[in-house]
Amino acid sequence: MQTHMTQNASRIHSNEIAAYVGERVQVQGWVHTLRLLGGVNFLVLRDGRGTVQAVTEDEANLAPLVEPALQPETVITLEGVVVASDQAPGGFELHQPTIEVITPVTEPLPVLISKKEIKASLTNLLDHAVTVNRHPRRQAIFRLAAAAIGAFRAHLNQRGFIEIQTPKIVASATEGGANVFAIDYFGRPAYLAQSPQFYKQIMVGVFESVYEVGPVFRAEPHDTARHINEYVSLDVEFGFIRDHFTVMAVLRDVLTAIFSAMEETCAGELAMLNAHMPVLPDTVPMIDFTAAQALILERHGVDVRGEPDLSPQDERWLGEWASAKYGSDFLFVVGYPMSKRPFYTHPDPERPLYSNSFDLLFGGVELVTGGQRLHRYADYLAALKRADMPVEPFASYLEAFRYGMPPHGGFAIGLERLLMQLLGGTNLRLTTLFPRDMGRLTP
Amino acid sequence: MQTHMTQNASRIHSNEIAAYVGERVQVQGWVHTLRLLGGVNFLVLRDGRGTVQAVTEDEANLAPLVEPALQPETVITLEGVVVASDQAPGGFELHQPTIEVITPVTEPLPVLISKKEIKASLTNLLDHAVTVNRHPRRQAIFRLAAAAIGAFRAHLNQRGFIEIQTPKIVASATEGGANVFAIDYFGRPAYLAQSPQFYKQIMVGVFESVYEVGPVFRAEPHDTARHINEYVSLDVEFGFIRDHFTVMAVLRDVLTAIFSAMEETCAGELAMLNAHMPVLPDTVPMIDFTAAQALILERHGVDVRGEPDLSPQDERWLGEWASAKYGSDFLFVVGYPMSKRPFYTHPDPERPLYSNSFDLLFGGVELVTGGQRLHRYADYLAALKRADMPVEPFASYLEAFRYGMPPHGGFAIGLERLLMQLLGGTNLRLTTLFPRDMGRLTP
Repeated sequence: MQTHMTQNASRIHSNEIAAYVGERVQVQGWVHTLRLLGGVNFLVLRDGRGTVQAVTEDEANLAPLVEPALQPETVITLEGVVVASDQAPGGFELHQPTIEVITPVTEPLPVLISKKEIKASLTNLLDHAVTVNRHPRRQAIFRLAAAAIGAFRAHLNQRGFIEIQTPKIVASATEGGANVFAIDYFGRPAYLAQSPQFYKQIMVGVFESVYEVGPVFRAEPHDTARHINEYVSLDVEFGFIRDHFTVMAVLRDVLTAIFSAMEETCAGELAMLNAHMPVLPDTVPMIDFTAAQALILERHGVDVRGEPDLSPQDERWLGEWASAKYGSDFLFVVGYPMSKRPFYTHPDPERPLYSNSFDLLFGGVELVTGGQRLHRYADYLAALKRADMPVEPFASYLEAFRYGMPPHGGFAIGLERLLMQLLGGTNLRLTTLFPRDMGRLTP
Repeated sequence: MQTHMTQNASRIHSNEIAAYVGERVQVQGWVHTLRLLGGVNFLVLRDGRGTVQAVTEDEANLAPLVEPALQPETVITLEGVVVASDQAPGGFELHQPTIEVITPVTEPLPVLISKKEIKASLTNLLDHAVTVNRHPRRQAIFRLAAAAIGAFRAHLNQRGFIEIQTPKIVASATEGGANVFAIDYFGRPAYLAQSPQFYKQIMVGVFESVYEVGPVFRAEPHDTARHINEYVSLDVEFGFIRDHFTVMAVLRDVLTAIFSAMEETCAGELAMLNAHMPVLPDTVPMIDFTAAQALILERHGVDVRGEPDLSPQDERWLGEWASAKYGSDFLFVVGYPMSKRPFYTHPDPERPLYSNSFDLLFGGVELVTGGQRLHRYADYLAALKRADMPVEPFASYLEAFRYGMPPHGGFAIGLERLLMQLLGGTNLRLTTLFPRDMGRLTP
């Protein structure tokens, strides 16, 4: 049936059957559902690309699955004649099926994945992610993730950015100091990188414009729906900018590219997940941090002026305002106080207590943080001194600035959060293949 | 000069000047070299895409770099008129230059990066990778890396593979047991993933055909030119295979795609690095493990029969043989003894002590390991028992097989090693941006 050095040449995939009407074809995959209704019997096979239905009035055709009774997820080869049918999901189905079992499943599944909705507690669902991620809706989420990453890269490649891979094991708990995982590195202490921040800045000195897609690790001891301890960060950094507005313009283009690609390549997935593309205007509305606080006082009677940061409630209110006033699902907040931003943040030259930084809110939730960074060596030395931080652990990082760096900036998009907001989800774990939280290290 | 929300619109890049002959253009970048020869003076500017030379007989044009004397790597804006010139590197240069300093560099560089060759000890070179990676030859290596990864993804996307991101923090030191880095995970022990092996197999149950590009972590206590402790792995896994030969066919196609893309998009980089594309025949030569040992005895008089694995010397000899006999830089060795392969390896059904696995040698060095995996739940239980390994730590992994997995297999390519072999390098650290070894955690 198969030839040496090739995959099974006669096999087609579920999404290809429309091209074979009237022909007998072979598909391979998992038994998604089997319904023996006496008169007519339905078998739905799921492969890596979708599902296909086989129909037969002759239960004997399905005998390999019935005697002995095999369970869903049994892996089979299915052959049948492709017939166009208005009633079939997708418009085509297989008739006169024959079945060969490749891998039988004899135990019932821990979580039923054959229904349209997954009915399980969050714990059960996460405990059995190995099985649950086979559900078409779960598949759809991670197809969207792949599409988002693909579009992110394609857009940046087109702009001349270079993809980089930077180390995840680092010598010191640099950026914030807290919330890092410690490693035993051949008897020496080391840490997991909280972000590729330092390395992507260093690489601006090499390639000028860089990006990275990779894991980041945050040892934040918070057990909430919004926290996971390992996630995928889409990081961008580039040089020869004017200020943070240059960075915001690139971010907007990147997000547009991501959403366009999803619409173009994942229409089925979006429909299955009842997801609608958000409104991302050509000019994303923008509000200054202090103006945002004043707005909150004016609209909600809550005085948050003087607070050094926005609370999640503040962000929700601002998101509602942007939606009502501009019809936009996105809002830039700019000019955060320097006091709450990391030491490498570039101040606003005209208001040194405020920064050339931004957050991008999506549906009233922070999706992206970014801004302009310091680029002069002397400014770094002063910033570290001001923050009462030692210079020595930063020696390699500082080398980049000592030997010539242009004005530069960048941002980081959290992949799982982007998906969560897009899909109207409420728990970050559900847009992560195999989430890590304070209590979860498996699967 | 710049407008709100856009990058500097009037700036062009060094690789674009040919389109502007006769026009005055603006470039921005780093002072790569400055040669004041009295009569004629040469300034080479490097930006993220290459270099461009400015020439002037009037030293006053270069005054911002001369009074006070600034060092190489000073960041500047350079304007000049594009002139075609046979003597200019690349065929074009800038005349009548004017210079504006963006970021001055006042200290001499720790390692000179303006010469064609980098002259520095390995230690010095690695200590100052932040600066050294700006050297055009270093840039070229990592442009090749980006091209390789891009081609890897593009080829697999075209075949319907889905890109995944799997967790790097894992609950148990699963695969081999030894050589894992331990993490303090909120007071519990956890480990850094040695490979995405288990997760990519699990995801075959979801998407059938998957790949991942990500970091892997090996706590191998070996301080050699061939060991680094964190590297980039290009992982592939897919289902509905016949056996390991199906996997080898896909691997060959993937490598062909990678080398083709390098030739197409990185001709300049390859030339700069004196690199030649290796010979990868349509049908890669292949030898069975036991036949390979017999061949070594016959050709070199060394009896390695009975050894459970090939030594580096054995691999070099086999590589020489493949080159001499088949003119191929690549050689598949198949049928390794089960005893030296991980527990999930699928045996050769006809010779159960040997495996459906392979290594791919490139220039006599192992580049890729792969093979067919077990896919039946009962086979996993038996394999773990045989290896005297407990079942419980593998519960989630085993769930994939308990609930239906097709015959499947895959492989992993080490990115840094691919580049090292391609470039005829001798130390893996030199094809890694910021290598990690037993003694090195910075930069």
